[in-house]
Amino acid sequence: MSLSEFDLIDRYFRSCGAKRSDVRVGVGDDAAILECPAGTQLAAAVDSLVDGVHFPHGSPAASVGHRALAVNLSDMAAMGARPAWALLALTLPGADESWLAEFAAGMSALARAHDVALVGGDTTSGPLCVSVQVLGHVPRSSALLRSGGRVGDAVFVSGFPGDAGAGLAIEQGRLPAAGEDAAYLRERFLYPAPRVALGECLRRHASACIDVSDGLLADAGKLARASGCGVEIGYEEVPVSEALERVVGAQRARELALTGGDDYELCFTVRPAQVGRLLAELPPQRWGYTRIGTLREVPGAEVLRDGAVMSVSSSGYDHFSHA
Amino acid sequence: MSLSEFDLIDRYFRSCGAKRSDVRVGVGDDAAILECPAGTQLAAAVDSLVDGVHFPHGSPAASVGHRALAVNLSDMAAMGARPAWALLALTLPGADESWLAEFAAGMSALARAHDVALVGGDTTSGPLCVSVQVLGHVPRSSALLRSGGRVGDAVFVSGFPGDAGAGLAIEQGRLPAAGEDAAYLRERFLYPAPRVALGECLRRHASACIDVSDGLLADAGKLARASGCGVEIGYEEVPVSEALERVVGAQRARELALTGGDDYELCFTVRPAQVGRLLAELPPQRWGYTRIGTLREVPGAEVLRDGAVMSVSSSGYDHFSHA
Repeated sequence: MSLSEFDLIDRYFRSCGAKRSDVRVGVGDDAAILECPAGTQLAAAVDSLVDGVHFPHGSPAASVGHRALAVNLSDMAAMGARPAWALLALTLPGADESWLAEFAAGMSALARAHDVALVGGDTTSGPLCVSVQVLGHVPRSSALLRSGGRVGDAVFVSGFPGDAGAGLAIEQGRLPAAGEDAAYLRERFLYPAPRVALGECLRRHASACIDVSDGLLADAGKLARASGCGVEIGYEEVPVSEALERVVGAQRARELALTGGDDYELCFTVRPAQVGRLLAELPPQRWGYTRIGTLREVPGAEVLRDGAVMSVSSSGYDHFSHA
Repeated sequence: MSLSEFDLIDRYFRSCGAKRSDVRVGVGDDAAILECPAGTQLAAAVDSLVDGVHFPHGSPAASVGHRALAVNLSDMAAMGARPAWALLALTLPGADESWLAEFAAGMSALARAHDVALVGGDTTSGPLCVSVQVLGHVPRSSALLRSGGRVGDAVFVSGFPGDAGAGLAIEQGRLPAAGEDAAYLRERFLYPAPRVALGECLRRHASACIDVSDGLLADAGKLARASGCGVEIGYEEVPVSEALERVVGAQRARELALTGGDDYELCFTVRPAQVGRLLAELPPQRWGYTRIGTLREVPGAEVLRDGAVMSVSSSGYDHFSHA
């Protein structure tokens, strides 16, 4: 492989993602030079994916490229921000052209779908690790924080948490499944759809928001703690997909929905008096979200079934406690 | 080790770097929320350091933290931008508290020296790799690009390139040296000083600028190519430190200065008619820079000695051609 680092970066990343007129200098100089819109604040997030930790070794390169961007777009969504620009730090064991081409294509397709330009990057040799930084904009003082919830706020989640956790288990051979349901669940892990449009709309409705990456129960708990509250989730209210229920059964499906991880859905809270307007302006059947519980005074995150507190086996994915 | 990921991030990075009033939301939510000053453009850069590639395995944690930020501050300097905020993606084999404490202290000291706030981070388990993203500001349309040079422009470099390359060789035991000179050279590798103040001042003087990370000759060549020129460097003009000359001799010192890498100095060009003003307003003896050559029409980067083209052994550090 004779491609130098500079050629590699040039070839695959110079044209990655959307073209944007607010990019004054993109990939190729010492830094990108970018024009921020007036009246906005900048939102900035970074997330890394490590081979064998955040995705199974041997995952499709297009999925790795997609997910590395998606997890950061999901952070933008959770703030109610509109993503604009991304920077990529890619560490690769070697310069495998076909892997790089697929990786760049996976990232580029998602970037274009969200009008995100890749404006900078750094490619180095080493064990496979992908860090992406996404920058976005939010109208001044309107970002959705984790800390805005109050006791009594209704708690919602978008989509079907648990699907991605099951998809990962299928990818890893830990969960036997085949056919359309398996294909759907694997897709949900490999190509998550960050809820960027929902996040932007929620600025008008939500009191607090977090993205669900470590498991619904754990992340709802983080939102509640940041808001100085606890949270109660109704077991029967937790939405599960039909595919997940068919593959693992109703009870395991809800457990996975509560603890699975890698969902990249949004968990958000709404003042009781605002719930009617939310449901009217963002019809749940179109936007795909479900009321699952309530913020309460007592600290902690609990799941209630028929009025009793359920014990849930795992409280989310913590990288070091698994190490 | 029972610290969870969240506790780790909290403990060491919540108070890393400077406090800035333009940070509306810092570490701890899904993304940072930042206020950009009016009349400026945003500068954004990312660079990664991989264990065993960009620093010797077993390097002092404080140096790793310092360098991971320094290489990005150097990118800001090369654009003439003022750094403001940093985000950190840290991949660690395990949660070694004393390593983390030293790493954070090394990064924090440099961040505070440049009034940079750490506003976001992601800590994951895996082989040691540090990616830092730095965001900064530059007055609208005044960023220093690589592409602004013209044939005839004078070429300058700051500091003493080659010192860091020798320091790395000493660290790795490839270059025998001891005493004060060795200590000075090791320090220049372990704790490089990014030329942020010089970069900001150069906005009024330079036509083009690049930071010297891959070797002076290679990086001057990149600047020249981006400017549609070539570059000639005078062998005798290349500045070398007395320490470097004492340790490796005069000839090897100049070779290292031309090809060594890891310098994080600035290489910049100035229109011939502006050189007088540069020298008057930024006295070289105070700012520490040297004229080393000229942009020319013929493409390529060459070193001239007594009118003849010298052959220089290595043209800079390319991660993949070393892999």
